[in-house]
Amino acid sequence: MALQARVIYDFNSENPGELSVKESEILTLISEQDIDGWLESSNSKGDRGLVPASYVEILRSEAELNSYNINAEPRYSNIPAGGFDKLQNFSKPPPVGLTAYTAPIQEHHNNKHHIQGSDDDWDDDWDDSSTVADEPGNVGGRYQDSEGSTYRVTTHIGPRGNATQAKSSATVGRNLNRFSTFVKSGGEAFVLGEALGFVKDGDKLCVVLGQYGPEWQENPYPFSCTIDDPTKQTKFKGMKSYISYKLTPTHTQNPVSRRYKHFDWLYARLAEKFPVISVPHLPEKQATGRFEEDFISKRRKGLIWWMNHMTSHPVLSKCDVFQHFLTCTDEKAWKQGKRKAEKDELVGANFFLTISTPPAPLDFQEVESKIDGFKTFTKRMDDSTMQLNATVNEFARKQMGGFKKEYQKVGMSFKALSQAFEMDQQTYSSGLNHAISFTGDTYEAIGEYFYEQPSKDLDPVMDLLALYQGHLANFPDVIHVQKVLRATRALTKVKESQKHVEEGKMDRAQADGINDRCNIISCATLAEIQHFHHIRVRDFKAQMQHHLQQQIAFFQKITGKLEEALQKYDNA
Amino acid sequence: MALQARVIYDFNSENPGELSVKESEILTLISEQDIDGWLESSNSKGDRGLVPASYVEILRSEAELNSYNINAEPRYSNIPAGGFDKLQNFSKPPPVGLTAYTAPIQEHHNNKHHIQGSDDDWDDDWDDSSTVADEPGNVGGRYQDSEGSTYRVTTHIGPRGNATQAKSSATVGRNLNRFSTFVKSGGEAFVLGEALGFVKDGDKLCVVLGQYGPEWQENPYPFSCTIDDPTKQTKFKGMKSYISYKLTPTHTQNPVSRRYKHFDWLYARLAEKFPVISVPHLPEKQATGRFEEDFISKRRKGLIWWMNHMTSHPVLSKCDVFQHFLTCTDEKAWKQGKRKAEKDELVGANFFLTISTPPAPLDFQEVESKIDGFKTFTKRMDDSTMQLNATVNEFARKQMGGFKKEYQKVGMSFKALSQAFEMDQQTYSSGLNHAISFTGDTYEAIGEYFYEQPSKDLDPVMDLLALYQGHLANFPDVIHVQKVLRATRALTKVKESQKHVEEGKMDRAQADGINDRCNIISCATLAEIQHFHHIRVRDFKAQMQHHLQQQIAFFQKITGKLEEALQKYDNA
Repeated sequence: MALQARVIYDFNSENPGELSVKESEILTLISEQDIDGWLESSNSKGDRGLVPASYVEILRSEAELNSYNINAEPRYSNIPAGGFDKLQNFSKPPPVGLTAYTAPIQEHHNNKHHIQGSDDDWDDDWDDSSTVADEPGNVGGRYQDSEGSTYRVTTHIGPRGNATQAKSSATVGRNLNRFSTFVKSGGEAFVLGEALGFVKDGDKLCVVLGQYGPEWQENPYPFSCTIDDPTKQTKFKGMKSYISYKLTPTHTQNPVSRRYKHFDWLYARLAEKFPVISVPHLPEKQATGRFEEDFISKRRKGLIWWMNHMTSHPVLSKCDVFQHFLTCTDEKAWKQGKRKAEKDELVGANFFLTISTPPAPLDFQEVESKIDGFKTFTKRMDDSTMQLNATVNEFARKQMGGFKKEYQKVGMSFKALSQAFEMDQQTYSSGLNHAISFTGDTYEAIGEYFYEQPSKDLDPVMDLLALYQGHLANFPDVIHVQKVLRATRALTKVKESQKHVEEGKMDRAQADGINDRCNIISCATLAEIQHFHHIRVRDFKAQMQHHLQQQIAFFQKITGKLEEALQKYDNA
Repeated sequence: MALQARVIYDFNSENPGELSVKESEILTLISEQDIDGWLESSNSKGDRGLVPASYVEILRSEAELNSYNINAEPRYSNIPAGGFDKLQNFSKPPPVGLTAYTAPIQEHHNNKHHIQGSDDDWDDDWDDSSTVADEPGNVGGRYQDSEGSTYRVTTHIGPRGNATQAKSSATVGRNLNRFSTFVKSGGEAFVLGEALGFVKDGDKLCVVLGQYGPEWQENPYPFSCTIDDPTKQTKFKGMKSYISYKLTPTHTQNPVSRRYKHFDWLYARLAEKFPVISVPHLPEKQATGRFEEDFISKRRKGLIWWMNHMTSHPVLSKCDVFQHFLTCTDEKAWKQGKRKAEKDELVGANFFLTISTPPAPLDFQEVESKIDGFKTFTKRMDDSTMQLNATVNEFARKQMGGFKKEYQKVGMSFKALSQAFEMDQQTYSSGLNHAISFTGDTYEAIGEYFYEQPSKDLDPVMDLLALYQGHLANFPDVIHVQKVLRATRALTKVKESQKHVEEGKMDRAQADGINDRCNIISCATLAEIQHFHHIRVRDFKAQMQHHLQQQIAFFQKITGKLEEALQKYDNA
């Protein structure tokens, strides 16, 4: 008999897949097992969906309670300590209290229009305050690792100096909320064979076995896309204004005009659709100075980085909604494509249906170990990029402040000396006076060079770090699959060791299906990790080279200026 | 009848030329006119010498008081306002109180052995505390200019950062004390025809008319002198230790060994002997760290600068005591030469007897105007070198502290990033990891370059500035002649206008003699000013070139290091 539960608090569905329930309502549970604190249930009308586990109490008969308790003991008695622990990790609801469930509701309310996007609010001003989540400056996802210790992945990139701390955008916050783990990975539902959808051949995605393990099959038609001409536009007789960018993809050579809110909408679609792919975060929204040249330039650079990561990704670059975004110029077609994307069924768990894997299944233990290694890696990378960002930020501030000031003070002192010397009007003195004065100008110019330099070599480093901080914030969700794998392995072992298969409690086909689906998730996850390493090496190499080239040019410019000053003494 | 004065405070002679007197003693005044606060007097035993004017009260009969007062009025009645003011400046005692006269006595006590140098104290440890004057950190000469405003010439070069403020040496202080103006210039005594001495042909010094006015005749046998091998020596079974330097003059090629105290003794002789010549100050004594490598190296550099200014000076380079210092190797001959130098009669006022001038006398008005201009020049130069010194000092401190720290922090952050990246062991990643690690090392090295650089380019600038601060402190004494000239011109005018010459109160020969002697002083002063400008232009040109060359080499070194780092990415 299916288990029942009584609702103890009202709950209003905020996302697809959730079920709105009222206090005292009786629900039927599809499974007793909660998934990250959520229970799949159906109500008396037959509507099915997720309800927070802590909003309900499970109803059991005395007999059931007894058998549950009695069975519980011997059922896991043969499991080795490690396996048991792992299983516990999966089967026990996470230790989250009511606060954790209620607090994010406000967040969801704010994010609503991203998820329930409609043509009606499409024309809102792109920086309408309703799109900005009320989040603290530090946006982060807390990841609980298997050892029980936690680390914080933080996307907060501190503004230089004392500038106002920009509010983090909803975009950054969205996939870090309470629903993210489920919504993004969709892993559990898929593993349990609950994901169903029709997959056309064109939607098929291949993971292939490369030199370093599973890889996304490369896009056979690679392209890139430039972002130019940020232009200020107005509407409603100048009441509203916004910036549009000209996007020119290399594969069509046909420019399209897009606003930040279009990027934002696209991001929401991608984040929803791809559970094991790290969708690059958009550059932060910023409430102030949006029409200032600096801000526009900074946002454009951020969008260029973002676009680069999009077009570099074998899966993201090919997907329909992104192609629609890059190529559609007709307004009607745009709205059709938009509606189609919002109704896409191959999102979340269903996305996994589109993946085909190499013939030989992976060794799950190896997969787990790789993912463990990657988790350690991301933690270290997160720490070191945070540190580098803070250092570089401070270094830029010092160069623009103290360094500039020191060189200019020296320059002014040389100037003052030359002015004092000019009081001696003898001819043999005038050459020196002029040369010292020129040296003073030189030092003032060098001070100015120091002021200008960070925008050429340190800002790009910070842009890169911001992008990777975004990826690092995504990865706890991406590698969530590890939990699924652990639980599955433990479960399978238990079943097999106790001959549960033979006893009919779990048939072989079901066990094989779970293994197959776990293999798909594993392949996709490892492919995504591999892709991350590839672009990381590519990006950091390019950025370090760029940084050093700029630094060399900078010091050469200083040297040239000093040489010019030195020459003035030749005839002095 | 000669004027008499009663002593109101005891006064003990501390310098040659002074007269010790007791309270209530009656003195006979040689002249009623004081010279910078000093009165020439003789006591009852017939001993003659200088006594502070404020230590005595002049005794007058009623008749004398009346005639003095009556005569005073009409005597100057025809003098134009300007001339009267100028005369006033000369004839009125400077407004100095008792404090000004008593305070420096301690100073004199401390300086005693310089002035009364004997072979007995010759072997004292060179940094015996009795040779260090108890002076404040800022050593300066206060110069009262004709407009009545004052400016301070300060030789204090602040130690870098928070290092202990070095006590200024007696050497610096000596010619800035209350006696300096008289002792150094000797101008008044000479102008009044009171300087007498036998001048051999070999002692003759020529001022010639050069392109820019009077100049010292160049030394026909120019030479220079190296200072090397500072060596620690001990005596009294290691109880005392000192540093000796090897001096090798180019004209003898014969090295001599000298200690700082020998330089100090020489300096005292030169400062005493030459009234209108700016004898370069020795590098400061420093009580702490005298055997540390840094201090020895710093002192040696200071002595090299000093030596350079000595050998560059047409008069100083040729003088007997300097030649004795540079060439004597025999101990007995050394003591003889030493005694001879200390008994030199052609010192102070008598030095002027050795000077021969171009045939055409100078226009005194022009001389005054030139000296006025130079006074303004030195004030501006003093201000700007003080400012430059402070700036450069701070700049050095910042480079050795903040700049170094910033580059090294960036270096460490790159290192940390490379260490995080090393957790990814895939082959395509290792080249990048190595390159980033190398970049980290590069930034740490650049930080070290910033730390080392000031000793190469800013310290020499500060050494130069210290030397010139010393010259600027000397110049108020050197250009003291201006007062003499003004007074003389005024006096001569008065005499002539009132036909005093005809009335026998001042004979023509006397007036001509005064003019001739004023001309000698003027020529010497202008020659010294000209020499100052010449070496200033030479030194600052050379130092600025050196500084810029070092800066260029510094930035090229950084560029080279960065290029090396960039290359590491080529195969990454």
